[in-house]
Amino acid sequence: MAKTKTPAPKSLARKPRGFQDKREDVLTAELEMIERVTHVYHLWGFEGIETSAFEYADALGKFLPDQDRPNAGVFSLQDDDEQWMSLRYDLTAPLARFAGENWDTLPKPFRRYAWGPVWRNEKPGPGRFREFMQCDADTVGSKGPAADAEMIAMMAEALKAAGAQPGSYAVRVNTRDLMSGLLDSIDAREEGTRLTVLRALDKLDRLGVEGVADLLGEGREDESGDYTKGAGLDKARIDRVLAFASAGKPTRSETLEAMASAVAGNEAFDRGVAELREIDGLLSALGARDEDVVFDPTIVRGLEYYTGPVFEGELLNEILDDKGRPVRIGSVGGGGRYDGLVSRFRGEEIPATGMSLGISRLAAAMSLTGELDRLSGPVVVLVLDREHLADSHELAGTLRRAGIRAEVYMGSSGMRPQMKYADRRGAPAVVIVGEDERNKGTVTIKDLIVGAQKAKAIKDNTEWRESRPGQVEVSRSEMVQTIRKMLESDQ
Amino acid sequence: MAKTKTPAPKSLARKPRGFQDKREDVLTAELEMIERVTHVYHLWGFEGIETSAFEYADALGKFLPDQDRPNAGVFSLQDDDEQWMSLRYDLTAPLARFAGENWDTLPKPFRRYAWGPVWRNEKPGPGRFREFMQCDADTVGSKGPAADAEMIAMMAEALKAAGAQPGSYAVRVNTRDLMSGLLDSIDAREEGTRLTVLRALDKLDRLGVEGVADLLGEGREDESGDYTKGAGLDKARIDRVLAFASAGKPTRSETLEAMASAVAGNEAFDRGVAELREIDGLLSALGARDEDVVFDPTIVRGLEYYTGPVFEGELLNEILDDKGRPVRIGSVGGGGRYDGLVSRFRGEEIPATGMSLGISRLAAAMSLTGELDRLSGPVVVLVLDREHLADSHELAGTLRRAGIRAEVYMGSSGMRPQMKYADRRGAPAVVIVGEDERNKGTVTIKDLIVGAQKAKAIKDNTEWRESRPGQVEVSRSEMVQTIRKMLESDQ
Repeated sequence: MAKTKTPAPKSLARKPRGFQDKREDVLTAELEMIERVTHVYHLWGFEGIETSAFEYADALGKFLPDQDRPNAGVFSLQDDDEQWMSLRYDLTAPLARFAGENWDTLPKPFRRYAWGPVWRNEKPGPGRFREFMQCDADTVGSKGPAADAEMIAMMAEALKAAGAQPGSYAVRVNTRDLMSGLLDSIDAREEGTRLTVLRALDKLDRLGVEGVADLLGEGREDESGDYTKGAGLDKARIDRVLAFASAGKPTRSETLEAMASAVAGNEAFDRGVAELREIDGLLSALGARDEDVVFDPTIVRGLEYYTGPVFEGELLNEILDDKGRPVRIGSVGGGGRYDGLVSRFRGEEIPATGMSLGISRLAAAMSLTGELDRLSGPVVVLVLDREHLADSHELAGTLRRAGIRAEVYMGSSGMRPQMKYADRRGAPAVVIVGEDERNKGTVTIKDLIVGAQKAKAIKDNTEWRESRPGQVEVSRSEMVQTIRKMLESDQ
Repeated sequence: MAKTKTPAPKSLARKPRGFQDKREDVLTAELEMIERVTHVYHLWGFEGIETSAFEYADALGKFLPDQDRPNAGVFSLQDDDEQWMSLRYDLTAPLARFAGENWDTLPKPFRRYAWGPVWRNEKPGPGRFREFMQCDADTVGSKGPAADAEMIAMMAEALKAAGAQPGSYAVRVNTRDLMSGLLDSIDAREEGTRLTVLRALDKLDRLGVEGVADLLGEGREDESGDYTKGAGLDKARIDRVLAFASAGKPTRSETLEAMASAVAGNEAFDRGVAELREIDGLLSALGARDEDVVFDPTIVRGLEYYTGPVFEGELLNEILDDKGRPVRIGSVGGGGRYDGLVSRFRGEEIPATGMSLGISRLAAAMSLTGELDRLSGPVVVLVLDREHLADSHELAGTLRRAGIRAEVYMGSSGMRPQMKYADRRGAPAVVIVGEDERNKGTVTIKDLIVGAQKAKAIKDNTEWRESRPGQVEVSRSEMVQTIRKMLESDQ
């Protein structure tokens, strides 16, 4: 082998600001989530497609649906033919481009799912990354509301498949016509007022009825003393908004009744109620129970973007993080109807509806609730005598052929560091062949799981040494069987 | 629902130059390949990790190992803090950054696998995309040659797992010391001469011994009349290079013997032979047969980059593309030892070795050889009467709960377009419930697979109409069972 000179470090090894490295535990959890969610999408007759990371900036547009990320930017660069390209900021804009480009040859309606990273050029913060994984499904070319109902029911199904227990998740549904009907009915014509009212609605579960009433009226001072100017509505109008906002009831049909009686005589509003009523019937046919999918008047999602039903998927239960603190995950995805997006590529109206799940959040939640299998490290075959290196490789090969994850220690250190290495790798066992074992045709197998469990249980050092972590010497032909038993008893 | 005005098309829907959209068949084949290959990496004790798409440009460096893409560029942009970031052009450079950044806390040697898209900012061509999928494994912190032997054996194993039949794939191995020893032994000191000799070696299987001899001597004119200037070696030196180049024999030990006798008395060369001899022993211990892994003196890979053993994975058999033309896939991946890459982040020497498989090529090859399952579209439940839409959804739900991929037709067209849609979707069957069926509590199931097969077999139109594509009317409770039988008989 050629001699390599060690250069002085030329480059600083650091990952870019706002990006993350995922180790096996996090990565495996995310891939498992993707598999579970896309299994549902596939089962429901959606076609998996993948577009590239880049889109032309003009084709991508700027149609970020997330209200809470108003400054979301994109990563863009100029190609050598001077065209601007951007990294996708979601999976919907590339779908719109794809559908627009291939509309004539696609089966219609076009049902597709997709997953992959998306990029946002924005200020990173704790837990807020500039690259994250989404998993979407969309139906293009269907006016609904059947296509919307399907999306809503499928989101509930996907959350269940992800591992959420009944009662610990909900999809909350609202629709644009209810919102604009409500705003019209209180004569909120001005854009600023409309936004203030909607923002107030969105805060009902945090601020309660009184807090929202303040925001709808003069304004509100929070605990820190910050003052938010209100929408300036009079009492009658505030009451109407609050009646609507409080319409959420245990069942969808009760909620519909309460909603309908909150606002009367507005055409858009009535259309919204009728739409949700039709969706309710389809949801029931699809097996979505009242606790899985609720109608929620406080769900507000980008009125500029969404043109019909909107919904959010939420995890309801508090879970403990790895430091034992209670965490509420909350929203893990959302969706709705966006009839304007594909149409802008074509001279015809192309309605569309879809949903998106945030995989990282979902995976983190399911890891914390213990819904995912624990990972097991590889069995490590130690190397005691470099002269017999090939023998260690043969043993590792035997284990792998039996389906057991295994590796040979590849470093050049002695026994103790090798044991430490096996421990760091989460190895369930190590295989040792010294001179003694070689002469007898045996292998020594150290059970590191039993060892670790005993070490936890046993406080006393003497007792620990006496108990001796599980270690057996067996004939070579019994190696596979012995290790398999250890692995099985660990399940 | 809100009325949406149809805007005149504002944006042209087109995918960026050199990028591609993957439909379900291609995407599923690639994901299947990733799963098969990473299963091997995992089984062999490598840890899956994922780094972000971006790296800082200075940390990424420019260490493209591919000789045949000398002008390979990267996509770069400046962050808002003025630092330059680049999209990864392979998975090795990010690994080097990751290992460099986390070296102190990693288990050592560090074994990781990774897969994902990489981006090259270069001129696109037919079948040459600017975004493509790689699947890598690397061992950082092991001097080898055991770690190299493991990589080589694992590449053979991965190709087998991908679906390559015994005898239809090979991993070809060479090592840097043999090359530089050979070049030294013929006094080829000048960089240009060394490169010309190596390029000539690389062409042995295309040009044969005579063609290579010309390139080593004065030069060579090809069929098109283009003249390539040679290395200008004398006859004795040409003979020595040819003796080495022709050393490839059916078994690794025979090849080693032939290599050793081609060049005598050069230290680097002898070191190379000894290294391959040790690798040979480990390969045998790992179960790599002589036909799986061969020593090949004509394998040349970036001497600037690789510092030890190098290898390439190849598919050998010719397969027919979808137009019936024979295609030879050839190289689907490669790897080698690169001791300089991680070291440059640290003040210490950190040896490394690894491999990379090109997933798209592998997936395309395996699709063509029929190694992958055929995809089946969803069962489509037709909608004959919109009043009973919920009923169609209920039937689709019943099928899905039985694990059968199913969807309700979401458009607003009549019976014929719905049948056409089902056909376009590759539906194995459609479910029809008209008024008649509803009254009787039955469903009509049209078997589209039998229909399509019959349509192919039957030339005569009358016969076709008389034979009637498989269609049965069964009670609702028999729907699942009937469709399952159809799907099974299609296996």
